[in-house]
Amino acid sequence: MIYAVNPEWRTSTTKDVTGTNNGLEVIIAGWIHQKRDKGRLIFLTLRDHHGLAQVTLHEKKVSSEIWDRAKEITLESVVSIRGLVKSDPRSKLGAEIIPISIKIHAIADPKIPIDLTGKKTQMDIDTAFRYRELAIRDPEVSRIMEIKNVIAGAIREFFRKNNFIEIFTPFILTASTEGGAEQFKLDYFGRPAVLAQSCQFYKQAALACHEKVFGIIPSWRAEKSHTPKHMTEFWQIENEIAFATDQEIMQVQEDLVIFVLKKVNLEAKEQLNKLNRIIKIPSKPFKRIKFVEAKQILLDMELEVNPKEDFGAPEESVLSKSFDEPFFITHFPTNLRGMYYATDPDNPEVTRSLDLMAPEGFGELSSGGQRVARYDTLNERILGKGFNPDDFEWYLRMFKYGMPPHAGYGLGFERLIRWVANLSHVREASMFPRTPDIYSP
Amino acid sequence: MIYAVNPEWRTSTTKDVTGTNNGLEVIIAGWIHQKRDKGRLIFLTLRDHHGLAQVTLHEKKVSSEIWDRAKEITLESVVSIRGLVKSDPRSKLGAEIIPISIKIHAIADPKIPIDLTGKKTQMDIDTAFRYRELAIRDPEVSRIMEIKNVIAGAIREFFRKNNFIEIFTPFILTASTEGGAEQFKLDYFGRPAVLAQSCQFYKQAALACHEKVFGIIPSWRAEKSHTPKHMTEFWQIENEIAFATDQEIMQVQEDLVIFVLKKVNLEAKEQLNKLNRIIKIPSKPFKRIKFVEAKQILLDMELEVNPKEDFGAPEESVLSKSFDEPFFITHFPTNLRGMYYATDPDNPEVTRSLDLMAPEGFGELSSGGQRVARYDTLNERILGKGFNPDDFEWYLRMFKYGMPPHAGYGLGFERLIRWVANLSHVREASMFPRTPDIYSP
Repeated sequence: MIYAVNPEWRTSTTKDVTGTNNGLEVIIAGWIHQKRDKGRLIFLTLRDHHGLAQVTLHEKKVSSEIWDRAKEITLESVVSIRGLVKSDPRSKLGAEIIPISIKIHAIADPKIPIDLTGKKTQMDIDTAFRYRELAIRDPEVSRIMEIKNVIAGAIREFFRKNNFIEIFTPFILTASTEGGAEQFKLDYFGRPAVLAQSCQFYKQAALACHEKVFGIIPSWRAEKSHTPKHMTEFWQIENEIAFATDQEIMQVQEDLVIFVLKKVNLEAKEQLNKLNRIIKIPSKPFKRIKFVEAKQILLDMELEVNPKEDFGAPEESVLSKSFDEPFFITHFPTNLRGMYYATDPDNPEVTRSLDLMAPEGFGELSSGGQRVARYDTLNERILGKGFNPDDFEWYLRMFKYGMPPHAGYGLGFERLIRWVANLSHVREASMFPRTPDIYSP
Repeated sequence: MIYAVNPEWRTSTTKDVTGTNNGLEVIIAGWIHQKRDKGRLIFLTLRDHHGLAQVTLHEKKVSSEIWDRAKEITLESVVSIRGLVKSDPRSKLGAEIIPISIKIHAIADPKIPIDLTGKKTQMDIDTAFRYRELAIRDPEVSRIMEIKNVIAGAIREFFRKNNFIEIFTPFILTASTEGGAEQFKLDYFGRPAVLAQSCQFYKQAALACHEKVFGIIPSWRAEKSHTPKHMTEFWQIENEIAFATDQEIMQVQEDLVIFVLKKVNLEAKEQLNKLNRIIKIPSKPFKRIKFVEAKQILLDMELEVNPKEDFGAPEESVLSKSFDEPFFITHFPTNLRGMYYATDPDNPEVTRSLDLMAPEGFGELSSGGQRVARYDTLNERILGKGFNPDDFEWYLRMFKYGMPPHAGYGLGFERLIRWVANLSHVREASMFPRTPDIYSP
């Protein structure tokens, strides 16, 4: 019996329709995925979240009531079918259902705007996202979302077994100076507010309570980027650790990525196979290259590169393609990083920061580093960036009253999924993505 | 050694400062919680996320360097202290630290605006939330957040072990009719949008992909409620199940609540003890009373009650206090529930809906029920509520092309924590709450 499901509507899933269950009476339920009407013989393919099962009706062997229902049924209609599992070595699935009764829950309108049978030409991607509430019925979308589910579970398991505490940070924030142009503005009972671009300040604050924190946390960025790596609403794997340095957070990311990949190989092997994706477990330690070395790699390829600027999308892609395992880029210039990054004690022009990069052209996964932890330094850094310290009132105050040295990073959740599942765009890692063009469904 | 922490700054926590570790050399790290300067003897109390440890300095037994540092140190300064554990049966904690060296990470300004020593009079609650980034250092806040962490882990473990799939729903939505007044409005690249009041439509949609889904998901409500049960930003334990009825989702909630409470008793016993809270595991099945019966209970108490209206806050509180275990209220009138609730087949004036109520006056925990699953019925219900079907375009469309019968509920995450930890207000269950009055820090 399936937990939490009405046994009159479903006792089994398509997974149970196998030769070994020959003769078993089951009730399976789901959508009519395909239908072949051969006159005196009708083949229905029923789809549920586990896959497909064939239901075979002979006009002479079923009641006229069942026969009439099977005749009239449209694709995507929802049914419960009680029947006997019959082993059938000729069928692709190894067994089929011989129906005893059919309950129709919903008859679908036959003029469905997108093709879910997988038989016709592939629909264009914009149409698929316009009708996303229907497109998610596509078994390929289910596979991606199942991989996502395994990854989410693995992330939390990793942090919990290492004694990190899960945090829930706020999302409606007072409007601040930093990055104002890329914030979604909203009205908070007549006062100006914004949606959180990141939980940065709050995960740092949480260290005063828990010292080792994590979360999978949403963020928003009002940026009209049309790259395969950007959405306006996205989730980050957030991690911040008191009494840690840039060195420890690289090790944590190595362990996290390896833990997640092993778990995906174990718990989503079938889904990966169906997506033709093979995951290789990288070896520790991941390579570490400095910002200037990364720029030199690109210069050596005779690419046009500005060694003072951050990596552009093409540079990032080329760099990422030159590696077959994840790697770190470290020592980003101070002027390219946020004011909360600590600088190298030997060279204030360079931060103790790092990005984790995916191989195979997928590019940046995470950004992080050692944080500024002293009040005076932070005040100087805010002024140095041309910001007004008054805009950072509570953030500065917490440092005034003692904060530990700490380090942390944010790792793009959908970016990780994109790399693991080999997706062309991060929006495929989201059930209902938000981009400059899409905000419905 | 502690995972992910720099061993030069910390090798152990205050938890390791026990008689059984007598003679062990450790580095502990944290905040100076208390300081008693007795002339030639200084007692420092160091606070970390596990608790407190005493550090005892004799002027004659430590270097003048350490002595000077201990003399100058202020409350809330952050230090790493290397020293020997010394068993001390006279001390409350059973052992103390005799320091070898002290590293000062940050000297706190001595004029801290709130009292964290727990010694002076309790600060008023508004001040505590105004300086929340400091107030969360209070060990009592940590205990509550640790209980929250255990509850979050238990919820996900419960759903995962029962083969539910975790979903991540969108938060920026197109402005719709339903409950428009209570939505936070925002600007989406020049188009009007709102923050999700609930993930209702999206968790229903997700059934077409996964059939059994869950999540701990944020929602927003622009409501100026000043009750101990309301915040403008809150999280819901969301659960939706295809081929389930109102009966199954009551059983799931019983199992979920019992699983969570057992887990809290196991993994957060110490925290509960410190909050003087004893959790009794309720017995199954929880009592089920109909809406009209609940109203009758109140009428029998000779309270002034309108039997046609939803429960007001005082009614809910009185009702909740009449029970010592959680219970369900079922069969809410159709006019009091959302258009997506299925009605009783025998009486269209009543829905197949239910609220889970906490005992002891804590009131409503969850709302849910059987959903309308047929396109025609849904269309009628939308019209019946006076809404325009065009405002529900994609939502209606998914029913047009076949949706299974289903049921689900949303259970207030902070409300559950409030009940479990016996808190006076839900905002105490949030590290950085949002209410009509608070949106910073």
